[in-house]
Amino acid sequence: MEVFFYPKSVALIGASPEKGKVGNVLLRNLKNFNGKFYAVNPKYNEIEGIKCYPSILSVPESVDLVVIAVPARAVPRVVEECGIRGIENVIVISGGFKEVGLEGAKLERDLVEIARKYKMKLLGPNCLGMINAEIGLNATFSEITPNFGNVAFLSQSGAFILAVILWAQRAKFGFSKIVSLGNKAILSESDFLEYLAKDPATKVIMLYVEGIQDGQRFVEVAREVSKKKPIVIMKAGKTESGAKAASSHTGSLAGSYEVYKTAFEQSGIVVAENVEELFDFAFVLSKNKSAGNIAILTNSGGPGVMASDAVEIYGLKLSEFSFETINELKKFLPPSANFYNPVDILGDADTERFSKALEIIAKDRNVGSIVAILAPTAQINFRKAVEKVLSIQKPVYCCFMGIDEESEEILIKNRIPNFFDPTRAVKAIWAVEKYSRFDFTEKEFLKFDVDKAKADQIFAEFERSGVKFVGVEGMKLLECYKIPTARWGIARTVEEAEEIAEKLGYPVAMKIVSPDVIHKSDIGALKLNVGKREVKTSFYEIISKVESYIPDARIEGVLVQEMVKGGREVIIGMKKDPQFGNVLMFGLGGIYVEVFKDVSFRIAPLSRKDAYDMIRSVKSFALLKGVRGEKMLDLDTLVDTILKFSQLSMDYPISEMEINPLKVFEKGCVAIDFRMLLEVKK
Amino acid sequence: MEVFFYPKSVALIGASPEKGKVGNVLLRNLKNFNGKFYAVNPKYNEIEGIKCYPSILSVPESVDLVVIAVPARAVPRVVEECGIRGIENVIVISGGFKEVGLEGAKLERDLVEIARKYKMKLLGPNCLGMINAEIGLNATFSEITPNFGNVAFLSQSGAFILAVILWAQRAKFGFSKIVSLGNKAILSESDFLEYLAKDPATKVIMLYVEGIQDGQRFVEVAREVSKKKPIVIMKAGKTESGAKAASSHTGSLAGSYEVYKTAFEQSGIVVAENVEELFDFAFVLSKNKSAGNIAILTNSGGPGVMASDAVEIYGLKLSEFSFETINELKKFLPPSANFYNPVDILGDADTERFSKALEIIAKDRNVGSIVAILAPTAQINFRKAVEKVLSIQKPVYCCFMGIDEESEEILIKNRIPNFFDPTRAVKAIWAVEKYSRFDFTEKEFLKFDVDKAKADQIFAEFERSGVKFVGVEGMKLLECYKIPTARWGIARTVEEAEEIAEKLGYPVAMKIVSPDVIHKSDIGALKLNVGKREVKTSFYEIISKVESYIPDARIEGVLVQEMVKGGREVIIGMKKDPQFGNVLMFGLGGIYVEVFKDVSFRIAPLSRKDAYDMIRSVKSFALLKGVRGEKMLDLDTLVDTILKFSQLSMDYPISEMEINPLKVFEKGCVAIDFRMLLEVKK
Repeated sequence: MEVFFYPKSVALIGASPEKGKVGNVLLRNLKNFNGKFYAVNPKYNEIEGIKCYPSILSVPESVDLVVIAVPARAVPRVVEECGIRGIENVIVISGGFKEVGLEGAKLERDLVEIARKYKMKLLGPNCLGMINAEIGLNATFSEITPNFGNVAFLSQSGAFILAVILWAQRAKFGFSKIVSLGNKAILSESDFLEYLAKDPATKVIMLYVEGIQDGQRFVEVAREVSKKKPIVIMKAGKTESGAKAASSHTGSLAGSYEVYKTAFEQSGIVVAENVEELFDFAFVLSKNKSAGNIAILTNSGGPGVMASDAVEIYGLKLSEFSFETINELKKFLPPSANFYNPVDILGDADTERFSKALEIIAKDRNVGSIVAILAPTAQINFRKAVEKVLSIQKPVYCCFMGIDEESEEILIKNRIPNFFDPTRAVKAIWAVEKYSRFDFTEKEFLKFDVDKAKADQIFAEFERSGVKFVGVEGMKLLECYKIPTARWGIARTVEEAEEIAEKLGYPVAMKIVSPDVIHKSDIGALKLNVGKREVKTSFYEIISKVESYIPDARIEGVLVQEMVKGGREVIIGMKKDPQFGNVLMFGLGGIYVEVFKDVSFRIAPLSRKDAYDMIRSVKSFALLKGVRGEKMLDLDTLVDTILKFSQLSMDYPISEMEINPLKVFEKGCVAIDFRMLLEVKK
Repeated sequence: MEVFFYPKSVALIGASPEKGKVGNVLLRNLKNFNGKFYAVNPKYNEIEGIKCYPSILSVPESVDLVVIAVPARAVPRVVEECGIRGIENVIVISGGFKEVGLEGAKLERDLVEIARKYKMKLLGPNCLGMINAEIGLNATFSEITPNFGNVAFLSQSGAFILAVILWAQRAKFGFSKIVSLGNKAILSESDFLEYLAKDPATKVIMLYVEGIQDGQRFVEVAREVSKKKPIVIMKAGKTESGAKAASSHTGSLAGSYEVYKTAFEQSGIVVAENVEELFDFAFVLSKNKSAGNIAILTNSGGPGVMASDAVEIYGLKLSEFSFETINELKKFLPPSANFYNPVDILGDADTERFSKALEIIAKDRNVGSIVAILAPTAQINFRKAVEKVLSIQKPVYCCFMGIDEESEEILIKNRIPNFFDPTRAVKAIWAVEKYSRFDFTEKEFLKFDVDKAKADQIFAEFERSGVKFVGVEGMKLLECYKIPTARWGIARTVEEAEEIAEKLGYPVAMKIVSPDVIHKSDIGALKLNVGKREVKTSFYEIISKVESYIPDARIEGVLVQEMVKGGREVIIGMKKDPQFGNVLMFGLGGIYVEVFKDVSFRIAPLSRKDAYDMIRSVKSFALLKGVRGEKMLDLDTLVDTILKFSQLSMDYPISEMEINPLKVFEKGCVAIDFRMLLEVKK
């Protein structure tokens, strides 16, 4: 993609003399380009002093990159001509494709076909274009070309790029490359990420997306890229929830944004929750790659307190100064100053006092990052304070409140951030800490020895009988995958029920087997602790309850199950996400999932560490570790169970699956109930 | 306080000719004041053309306000002289008082004594001063006088005011009055709130504090003020937790910031979590007092999605447009536009399309507030868009991204906010919604008929015996307050234990009674379901466990208690806060409190509604309402119990108190365990 971003010659198809038109803005932008530029429009011989060719076919020399801004219906023909000319890099600015409806979608399919035929790298359609600020190439209809910097920006929204360029102009924020992703007909965010990982001009990649194309490839690519340089993402469309009528807890909790966040987390991407964070994080990560413990230096108590509040809120740590540091500070600070962290040099501090304290603090080995806060007192000379900051070798995050613009510009040029709000400075450090803590070590995926032959048989039978929903009877699959289950049998008659119960021993649990009854206990279709004499009446009662509450329910029998006492109930779930594949969920049963939504997600496949992390990252983990003198539960077996469950989910076309509950004991665990939705064949 | 803020004459004691000195900056600021100004300094006859008096006593005419900037040790004498001259309003800028240590604290006590003697309104010491921008009075050492606006600002940090003034200058943000609270020796935030409530120049009050003086008065005053105009507060020092070694859950959870937040909430104050929110909230609340449902209008899909994400995240609601609105929009918007909320008028929209859509949306009765988003496309003329916005009668929150400065200034002058980040616009609406939903109706406080005589006796006995910690035996107090308790007795011997158990019936619960054993179950000092034959062994076991784990524990006996089966466990707690008085806590027992910290707080006294709100506002409330076919528990009795508990906490000198657990049933509730810490007499 080197040629795409660094072309020696560019052609614009659809050049226009009409002011304000896209084809005219592009012409003006591109004629400033430092390579060769050709304008194409059959209606003109010349526009604004530039010779105009009737078609790309008539351009005499070879062209590295073509920018197309003609009406949508003409685009396929024009792209075909590019193909004929052997042009590999194409940007289609024109809108009017799949974003406008069926007819446009047809046009886009044609376009894709042509592009594929010629193996083109095609950006768009329906996009703002691309900017390479390093070589002054502005192939967009933004009238302003941003400053060159080291942040690459990929955006799914073109209009947002326009806004960002204007903002960046004022904030002195520079870009290496800007790409408007448009409809992503051929090139998607993953392609650009791959290229930008190797781009020496880019130190950090900023990504604004509304959706991701081919999630599984994205995760793979992003993880590789993140190892080399940070990716900061903001995803809009957080609350869009297509899964409201899901048939399991996993289904309803694994909403799209949760899955996206999980995918980003597993890829080592730093997630920004709003625009401000997106820029703050990208800016600081373009320079700083690790955070460490934080020292706060201030001439004003209040903002110092705000900063240390934020340190605790964001889960970061204040440095504990060495004895030497404190002694050094005591030597020259007034006695009512604070020598400990946060260091308050008091409101009457001059720039020299600030500089000396900064230097001492920076030398302390326990200090990783410094938040330097200055309120604009008469004693402070910001220019001199900035000079001191520049001489410090450790990352400094300034809150020079009320600093003059010139001094601030010096900071920014040296990629040192300045915030008015100390909270924001600390949040930016949080992002650096987050990036530095990602675990990029190679993952190992275990494969358990399971009874695949038997599981194959069971699925074959599902397919033969056209079953879509599998209830508790699906526990035989768990058995194939060596997940222990409570012993059970399905009774179609009272006699069968009594026979099974006799075999299991008393008491037993009894519940309806029906694809139409989800919440069994709600309607009395679940009986626990059933004794020998109650099996018969329980059987009839369960059937009659279901018949009266859900008259149309298909009743497949009554499950009679060993009563498993004690243990802690957990849920293991899986939902197939259209973008990212199998998403696994873990949580503690009952209210922890239902009310507190205290669950964790991971995308399969999982390493042992992933499974452990899933368990550890729910808040109610304390209950598994053992609270109030209880013993620690068998986490090793729980981890194995999650991994086996994940393996099962990968082996067959399952859309949703859940063990709920799985009971975990001090030794071992046992599945009590199970449900599964098979994938619908297309 | 009218004269304090609107003096006709001002004197500066400590005027100085030395550039950069506080006394010189003040002189320069005050000589521009539109009333009479007198400079006082015995060392000079004249400074910068202003006659200098040797002391305030020699100033010929009456003086309304005196500003003092002399060294700390001279302050008491100078203030005394002001008193002699009958001057009522004094600002002490000078530092060197309680903030610098013991000697300074002594000086401050002297100062307070003098000020009280002369009934002075004294601001400071150790403050930046006061600004009344309406009359151009700058009695601070800030060299810049802020623009006049309708936001009053009270700040405990002087340096922060300096920063804010500079920031406001650039952001075109105006102030009615600014007060630097300093050490609050005499005048505190409550005094200024009371005045500002009646100040016609002030529409909203912005407050930055690190601590509150006299919390109970503050809550009372703030509630009255909030009825008239919004107060927005930011409190630094959120994570300062003085209560780490508390002896109950209430003690450890009712940390200082939680209590502050509860107090603010009960006072109708809007809480900002950072500086940005402080200003955003104050700005929008200076104009808008209600939010309603939100309409989003945008020319760019992405930012529109960001805004609707934020609407859901902050618990607000999108408007559902009327049939008419949608029809009107369909009439002129292109077919691929979105006519529903958020309305996307597409990237090629011109200002006219925007204006027409805005007008139609604003007419819809289901629309309360409008977020208007414009990306800077070539088709958009921001100035014209601003003009349209000004003509709209409903609150509009602009996100005009990349707007020119002039047009933005017009918005700000008309008190219409403009944000780059749509998330921030929606958060600002959240603040307006929050303010509009405060319930300022008069509260009714019930008084239950209790056995006060008996409770008096019990407390008298505590006092006689010097008891500080009261355990489960304190349940007799609950009985006085008509809170049902599980029947119980305390046994000092095995025989007594057996006798009590016999009376209660089997099984029983048994636990140690000792002020030194907090977590009884952790060390095996609590036995449940004890049968007739196990009473003896349990008694010995409990005693021996305590003796082996906590050899020095004072053992007062073994409690034998009726086993109460079933019911849902809740905790009712109280902690006396040094600032705000009795803080009550409610939560569900066990992990809900310990791990999820799912608790709610209120400051006593409580109305019935307060108590209900406390219960309803915990997440685990679902468990009380009944989940999965369970019946609703007896909330009325639970409310009564909370109110009686609150009444008990107000009647006696109790420092901490907790019923844990209280078991709640479908009918009634029963206290199972109790602990209480009495206040230490001073």
